[in-house]
Amino acid sequence: MKLLRFGPQGQEKPGILDTSGAVRDLSGKTPDFSGDAVSLDALDAIRAIDVDSLPVVENPGRIGSCLASVPNFFCVGLNYAKHAEETGADKPAEPILFSKASSSLSGPFDEVHIPRTSKKTDWEVELGVVIGRETLYVSEADALSHVAGYCTINDVSERAFQAERGGQWIKGKSAPTFGPTGPWLVTADEVPDPQALRLWLSLNGEVVQDSDTSDMIFSVAEIVSYMSQFMKLMPGDIIATGTPSGVGLGMNPQRFLNPGDVMELEVEGLGKQRQEAVAAL
Amino acid sequence: MKLLRFGPQGQEKPGILDTSGAVRDLSGKTPDFSGDAVSLDALDAIRAIDVDSLPVVENPGRIGSCLASVPNFFCVGLNYAKHAEETGADKPAEPILFSKASSSLSGPFDEVHIPRTSKKTDWEVELGVVIGRETLYVSEADALSHVAGYCTINDVSERAFQAERGGQWIKGKSAPTFGPTGPWLVTADEVPDPQALRLWLSLNGEVVQDSDTSDMIFSVAEIVSYMSQFMKLMPGDIIATGTPSGVGLGMNPQRFLNPGDVMELEVEGLGKQRQEAVAAL
Repeated sequence: MKLLRFGPQGQEKPGILDTSGAVRDLSGKTPDFSGDAVSLDALDAIRAIDVDSLPVVENPGRIGSCLASVPNFFCVGLNYAKHAEETGADKPAEPILFSKASSSLSGPFDEVHIPRTSKKTDWEVELGVVIGRETLYVSEADALSHVAGYCTINDVSERAFQAERGGQWIKGKSAPTFGPTGPWLVTADEVPDPQALRLWLSLNGEVVQDSDTSDMIFSVAEIVSYMSQFMKLMPGDIIATGTPSGVGLGMNPQRFLNPGDVMELEVEGLGKQRQEAVAAL
Repeated sequence: MKLLRFGPQGQEKPGILDTSGAVRDLSGKTPDFSGDAVSLDALDAIRAIDVDSLPVVENPGRIGSCLASVPNFFCVGLNYAKHAEETGADKPAEPILFSKASSSLSGPFDEVHIPRTSKKTDWEVELGVVIGRETLYVSEADALSHVAGYCTINDVSERAFQAERGGQWIKGKSAPTFGPTGPWLVTADEVPDPQALRLWLSLNGEVVQDSDTSDMIFSVAEIVSYMSQFMKLMPGDIIATGTPSGVGLGMNPQRFLNPGDVMELEVEGLGKQRQEAVAAL
């Protein structure tokens, strides 16, 4: 299933794509997508609905984030070897974990706000994993059975806030609109191999990131199992699994976002995003 | 007001302490305490209720976390000079920010689970700040007007996970039960000066942390204003504002939690906690 949310900011309704690609209205059939509403059990209940019986949304308008809110917006750092190299970091021996503020979540076509004092706002196309049930101490073999689905994410990052302001990366990852997510939550049954997905990002039409999830250092199964040794993952948690090379930080000379710049990005099968950068008010 | 949640895990109800110290039942008058239900507006609505008209809860039983869930569980690191010193770190020039997984939230009297492979589980008494409205780019002068209230927090930490497993601190801060919070959410009007609160923690009856929030390097107002330059804080977000010296990591020889150890801790006016450490299943 391809689940999505449509409507003006803060008034989104849950929907589903039908076989013709039209949006059908799921409101009334499910609570808005977040937490337990995207658990594996909840998704099974949606799967049991006859999609053709649902009202067609003729003009869905804005597409919002595929989740209304997240209990946690986790990220994995430096998970592609060439990206680790371009940032000057060593290839990590274990997954590097950090988080974005949950308020960074935004729609796949919404403007990205360059923070007031930012000089180094950067892009990162990533495969997003959405957790489907409580996950603590799971094996790598069982890990993918805990995944509800996948989505495209732009892990927008302010490099000076991240690395030059003392301490931990969360400071550079958390501004409002720094987490475009969607357009679709694609359920796991439609993604037989999460390690075989092309992903790319273009800046003003020029492709700057172009890689494949087969190049991840730690696979989705390894990440989920690994994280569950340290914390309990919950239904609706997102994990952004790291970005390939081609970010502005790694370019020579470095390139960062200016107002008017346009990012387009896609993870194969999970839908395309497009954001214009604007100055935060 | 002193707000709290009582009842078995997962079935807690919201309540309030009356002037005699008895628990009154607020369920039916307010949604469970989280997010917008602890916004400044929501607290004003609770303030308008005649507490004496509410049913007395004769046997409240277990007291849960004072919040049912949190959009974000933020923390400030190394915010007391003597604690920075005991960990071997420099006094930070700017607040160090990190987060705990929201699933680490637990009740003030619940057992603390030492993770399966842990050898270095440690304690940290902290002043917790609960945000009361959307907070982005606020000045230090305005910052405290965005605070809903305060609570006692034990920022339980696994030092090997935090510092010896690659990367960011979240890995050592996020295990289930690593976030005892409460017993009360004390509204800001009852805490005229958050920088004048004694806080202490004892291990098996021996006081090991004993300090005062006047010793913080960055005040609550500075922290809230600072964070709001990087992210939008939301109603119900928690910020644990750092711990004073006296953690196990800083002792010579180092001391960490074993099953059966008992922590008691308190921030002045915000209520006392007590946890027994047990081995995670």
